[in-house]
Amino acid sequence: MIDMVNIIEKKKAGQALSEEDIRGFVKGVTDGSIPDYQTSALLMAICFQGMDRAETFCLTDAMLHSGQTMDLKEVKGVKVDKHSTGGVGDKTTLIVAPLAAACGVSIAKMSGRGLGFTGGTIDKLESIPGFRVQLSPEEFLQTVETAGMSVVGQTQDVAPADKKLYALRDVTGTVNNISLIASSIMSKKLASGSDAIVLDVKCGQGSFNKTQKAAEDLGRLMVDIGTDAGKKVVAVITDMDQPLGNAVGNSLEVIEAIDTLKGKGPADITELALTLAGYMIYCGRKAASPEEGRRMAEEALTSGKALDVFRKFVTMQGGDVSCVDDYSVFKQPLFKGEAKAGAGGHVAGIKADSIGLASQHLGAGRKTKEDAIDLSAGILLLKKVGDTIENGEPVAILFSDSEEKLAAGIAEAESAYTFSAEKPETPILIKEIIE
Amino acid sequence: MIDMVNIIEKKKAGQALSEEDIRGFVKGVTDGSIPDYQTSALLMAICFQGMDRAETFCLTDAMLHSGQTMDLKEVKGVKVDKHSTGGVGDKTTLIVAPLAAACGVSIAKMSGRGLGFTGGTIDKLESIPGFRVQLSPEEFLQTVETAGMSVVGQTQDVAPADKKLYALRDVTGTVNNISLIASSIMSKKLASGSDAIVLDVKCGQGSFNKTQKAAEDLGRLMVDIGTDAGKKVVAVITDMDQPLGNAVGNSLEVIEAIDTLKGKGPADITELALTLAGYMIYCGRKAASPEEGRRMAEEALTSGKALDVFRKFVTMQGGDVSCVDDYSVFKQPLFKGEAKAGAGGHVAGIKADSIGLASQHLGAGRKTKEDAIDLSAGILLLKKVGDTIENGEPVAILFSDSEEKLAAGIAEAESAYTFSAEKPETPILIKEIIE
Repeated sequence: MIDMVNIIEKKKAGQALSEEDIRGFVKGVTDGSIPDYQTSALLMAICFQGMDRAETFCLTDAMLHSGQTMDLKEVKGVKVDKHSTGGVGDKTTLIVAPLAAACGVSIAKMSGRGLGFTGGTIDKLESIPGFRVQLSPEEFLQTVETAGMSVVGQTQDVAPADKKLYALRDVTGTVNNISLIASSIMSKKLASGSDAIVLDVKCGQGSFNKTQKAAEDLGRLMVDIGTDAGKKVVAVITDMDQPLGNAVGNSLEVIEAIDTLKGKGPADITELALTLAGYMIYCGRKAASPEEGRRMAEEALTSGKALDVFRKFVTMQGGDVSCVDDYSVFKQPLFKGEAKAGAGGHVAGIKADSIGLASQHLGAGRKTKEDAIDLSAGILLLKKVGDTIENGEPVAILFSDSEEKLAAGIAEAESAYTFSAEKPETPILIKEIIE
Repeated sequence: MIDMVNIIEKKKAGQALSEEDIRGFVKGVTDGSIPDYQTSALLMAICFQGMDRAETFCLTDAMLHSGQTMDLKEVKGVKVDKHSTGGVGDKTTLIVAPLAAACGVSIAKMSGRGLGFTGGTIDKLESIPGFRVQLSPEEFLQTVETAGMSVVGQTQDVAPADKKLYALRDVTGTVNNISLIASSIMSKKLASGSDAIVLDVKCGQGSFNKTQKAAEDLGRLMVDIGTDAGKKVVAVITDMDQPLGNAVGNSLEVIEAIDTLKGKGPADITELALTLAGYMIYCGRKAASPEEGRRMAEEALTSGKALDVFRKFVTMQGGDVSCVDDYSVFKQPLFKGEAKAGAGGHVAGIKADSIGLASQHLGAGRKTKEDAIDLSAGILLLKKVGDTIENGEPVAILFSDSEEKLAAGIAEAESAYTFSAEKPETPILIKEIIE
């Protein structure tokens, strides 16, 4: 049995914890032998004193081994995973996975449900009628083998220590520490068994990384953890000041992803998807450079090969594939309404977090784990930063199954927009690549 | 209901908590509505960011009102309390209370049991056969009225919020913060209802204040809290590098206190008692200055008036008063042995904490709240710092009811002594007065 008071005192005094300390701590968190009040005291001390690279790697490794790890040995080739730190309108997984798979990279992805603004990738996929997110291990591997990709819900048993720590951090003001964030993300990603991971690290208003510096530090630390674990990890730092693409919501985002795979997507999401897919293809050793990977991804897009992968993937996971050509297959919302511009000129900014909150008001996101999601609720942005606008012109269309929720969503969405007479500078979407 | 996550985040960011925050927190701790894991996270944030004077006073005031407060209105005159932050061989309460009471100051004192090296004042008094530490409120007030002093056990209901916080701090590495220490002590003292308080703040090896600076800061803060509460508080900073007096243990300390009241006590404890009593008499407005108070205390000692008060006090609380003249009335220990000098020359130092630990090994102190105390176990120091010594000469006599415990105590006590060829400087007992 470890001496938790001693471990807490050590960290409080700014000393590095030993491997034995950290593994004993994670074991005690997992088996419940360490009381939450000692765990939260240690988490707070970590928030003040930090952890070095060795401690952070050790915490990650101990958490990833606290539960089941995925064995992808049976899947041929280099398996590449992708993770986003989360943002508003972020449906890139649904686009980059088919792009990379179409170029020969195997994508065996476990994904989470969302808590917050919209659902997670798993919730989004469930908006396709019939789509199954729980597959047996055999079905999962066979889908990867045949379609080139599969996306399933994360099992309860992946990194249970992280699950417990995250729940506690959420209620003790100890979320915001770079080592705790990096180890939480990386423990789950490394447990998923892929050989390489491409991380989309967001920064800006709609992300927990408010500054580019914070996002870069987090990206660097996660790349280092990957290196220490013997995995290739690339972190792409991207803008999350305004929402990504035009669609925010569950079925709305799936539709926008399909549009993008058809070559008709918004410029920003298309650009981001091609960049990320390029790195995935490069990390999956199907291209000699990220640039070559990107050209291959472009080819998979224009040729329709990526859309074919998407069709196969949806079909094999039980989804109604006719949704790809007929969007009326998706559940339709009962009510819709418009958010209008309060001034004319140009759109100066769209606060991503306000659009996220509007989406949650509409019913597209969960406030607590038990909440049901309205899969057809959401927002279509008609205007993005830099667009010209007249006073009173619609800036967004909102959808919900409740008139009351619709009204709340419209009010919040209108508050998200700011306007200026001058055309603002074009936001830079991809800010930095760390590998 | 307060928002604890917000309160934790505020303190984590270094902001001052509002009165509403602090009172809501203490209320939630008292009624159990705030989970321990949030409380410990806040306590750790306080350890890093500190609390200002206003916050510390507010925490003290909220804790003191979390339970019963003593009403001493029926006791005539100015009531003066005394508190020591605790040390090894500290039996001063048993001496200063009779000294001050003999000079007309009313002493209505609630005292705690000890956890650690020896028992508390209450445990020590219980070594007197028949002595009752639980009196009804009427008996308590009548004893103060008639004998001039009474000492009873603290009721469970005094500052219950402090009790809960202290228990949590003890197991979460959050003991050592000046505001938490000061508010814990002062909430209990202020709840006890006296008009003035003389604090004996220890510093050195045998105290949690390792440096004089730490002790002075703590003393200053407690005096400030007293001022904010409208009470006169004086803090006397005193040495706890070596144990106080020669006796360490429960009945052994009572006997040394009686010896001191007879004018036959060790020089250090006599000096400290006269100084503290002088301030108590001054704060109790029976003397125009602490110096005059001290002269009155000296007179009470030499005239035997203080010993008379002690006899009355013991009698009224049911104790066998014959113990004052016949120490064989105390329970006698089964075994005794000697600790011997490992070198000759002079005693250079006696580590107070090692002597405390030796005393605990002998059975005189508790390791956990449930442990029974051996009231006759303890140590008589034959040599103090500066005394000449020959190699192999006894430095202390140890007493216990177990031969095994005796052996452990002797080994620890021998390790407490250091020796030097040169005579060391005489330690300064009273270092500073803060008022």
